[in-house]
Amino acid sequence: MIKTRFTELFGVEHPIAQGGMQWVGTAELVAAVADAGALGFLTALTQPSPEALVKEIARTREMTDKPFGVNLTILPAITPPPYAEYRQAIIESGIKAVETAGYKPQEHVDAFKAHGIKVIHKCTAVRHALSAERMGVDAISIDGFECAGHPGEDDIPGLILIPAAADKVKIPMLASGGFGDGRGLVAALALGAEGINMGTRFCATKEAPIHDGIKQAIVANDERATELLFRSYRNTARVARNSVAMEAVQIEREGNPFEAIAHLVKGARGREGLENGDPEHGIWTAGMVQGLIHDIPSVAELVERIVGDAEALIGERLAGLVATRERANA
Amino acid sequence: MIKTRFTELFGVEHPIAQGGMQWVGTAELVAAVADAGALGFLTALTQPSPEALVKEIARTREMTDKPFGVNLTILPAITPPPYAEYRQAIIESGIKAVETAGYKPQEHVDAFKAHGIKVIHKCTAVRHALSAERMGVDAISIDGFECAGHPGEDDIPGLILIPAAADKVKIPMLASGGFGDGRGLVAALALGAEGINMGTRFCATKEAPIHDGIKQAIVANDERATELLFRSYRNTARVARNSVAMEAVQIEREGNPFEAIAHLVKGARGREGLENGDPEHGIWTAGMVQGLIHDIPSVAELVERIVGDAEALIGERLAGLVATRERANA
Repeated sequence: MIKTRFTELFGVEHPIAQGGMQWVGTAELVAAVADAGALGFLTALTQPSPEALVKEIARTREMTDKPFGVNLTILPAITPPPYAEYRQAIIESGIKAVETAGYKPQEHVDAFKAHGIKVIHKCTAVRHALSAERMGVDAISIDGFECAGHPGEDDIPGLILIPAAADKVKIPMLASGGFGDGRGLVAALALGAEGINMGTRFCATKEAPIHDGIKQAIVANDERATELLFRSYRNTARVARNSVAMEAVQIEREGNPFEAIAHLVKGARGREGLENGDPEHGIWTAGMVQGLIHDIPSVAELVERIVGDAEALIGERLAGLVATRERANA
Repeated sequence: MIKTRFTELFGVEHPIAQGGMQWVGTAELVAAVADAGALGFLTALTQPSPEALVKEIARTREMTDKPFGVNLTILPAITPPPYAEYRQAIIESGIKAVETAGYKPQEHVDAFKAHGIKVIHKCTAVRHALSAERMGVDAISIDGFECAGHPGEDDIPGLILIPAAADKVKIPMLASGGFGDGRGLVAALALGAEGINMGTRFCATKEAPIHDGIKQAIVANDERATELLFRSYRNTARVARNSVAMEAVQIEREGNPFEAIAHLVKGARGREGLENGDPEHGIWTAGMVQGLIHDIPSVAELVERIVGDAEALIGERLAGLVATRERANA
């Protein structure tokens, strides 16, 4: 067992979270993560309406007795989803942990805090982490350049971002982006985090609601098999490299208008890409940690292995490298 | 004391190296690193001739009794430096450790090995590390996206690159790029490396032969204050952000020919930039680890602090987080 300020704060067994993932964060995965003693988050906006989210929360509760949370990601949009209603659905369902992400979450954070809900905010820069801390969140999920989805525009990897944030942020932090095994968990703890958040690694588990063809592609891909889209619009997204992603990169490079790229991406991405077994079919997100993923275990096997490996690394390898001056001089 | 396969192989006290740095890897710094119990490398090509390198090796020996090495970086050039003569100078001076970097080092590796010299080869990709291992080098310095100078074109940070390499490479590896403190050393050891190589962090020490104005700039800069040049020519270099670097980035973005960018960079960079106290004067290299550098200690103070902090992290923080099941259930 590895006990940190994160496990204490959220009342879970292991310092591991499965943060929000569009189309993937449903009852099947979140209940398995909860049962494994880690903290899973349903993705609110994967549900078509606040009413559907209420039902998904109830469905998850039928599958596990352990605590789980809900992710609410706030994106600027001309016609935004009914965020306040999703928020209300979360509060009224008695959820005790929320992961927020995106822009200007203050009003949502205030509402969650007023109902005694613990909030962890995901961000990609030290200055954003400090701003979230001032906003009153309970914890930070600090997301490095390695991550799937939106790494921000600073391109600072976890090796730098985590300790740089730890030098300034006082509330507990989860390290996110690039984590998938016990080695990463120990590195995160050494760098100043209180645990890890994993996305891509949880996608390659038996319970993830993704076609097996995509899971096999994650296993087959190495660490270089990702592409960055929308860099020129300062809205960068890291996705798995395939023919569609490479076409999108190419038309972006040629200076085509945003609409052309968005059309290509929109036509291909989403639930359809994950439900179709052909990894070339659509655009789907994956992080660099693909290069460290070699199998498709159950969630329980994965969590158990990560914690066991981390314990062994700390108690055996690392402890063994530290020689007392006496022993070293002997 | 932290003892690893690296400290054993090279017969040094601490699992820390100061690899080759053009204009910086001179007797003053390398002797201080050696005296501190770490492994410093003189930069061969900083010396104007093989004869000058022989003298610099002798000068270093006057300053320290401890072992040190020499870096030989092989770059493709129309009129290359006399690599074979530099190599011969290294061998005839009785140097026992060499850091190689760059293209096709096979003939140099063969010659060094034939004289019983231990070779550590620096590379930025798993496939290059495997190729160097096949070439017969003794160790790898695996250099992540965070690093100053040449990170390669794959953009894989250490958090992924180190364990991905450790999954395949059998000889000992140093982790390079983004390292500057005890937290990083423990992370590197957890991820599968046998120690760390530091560049930028050693530049911000009392003994580094760099103007104090540049050292202060490293302290003042945060992790975001670097730029990537020559990306469009697949010869990427990470340098400190200043007005000259930003101008170079801009003319590269505008699609100017290589010559225009090279002219601007060449006119500004080099020894002059480091010897002038104005950080805006020229182009000079620095890694993202700038964001973790807050002071200018002596080399001895720095090495002592890193090892002491790493020991404490392993023996106190990490050991303390691991609860036995009995304790956790109590």
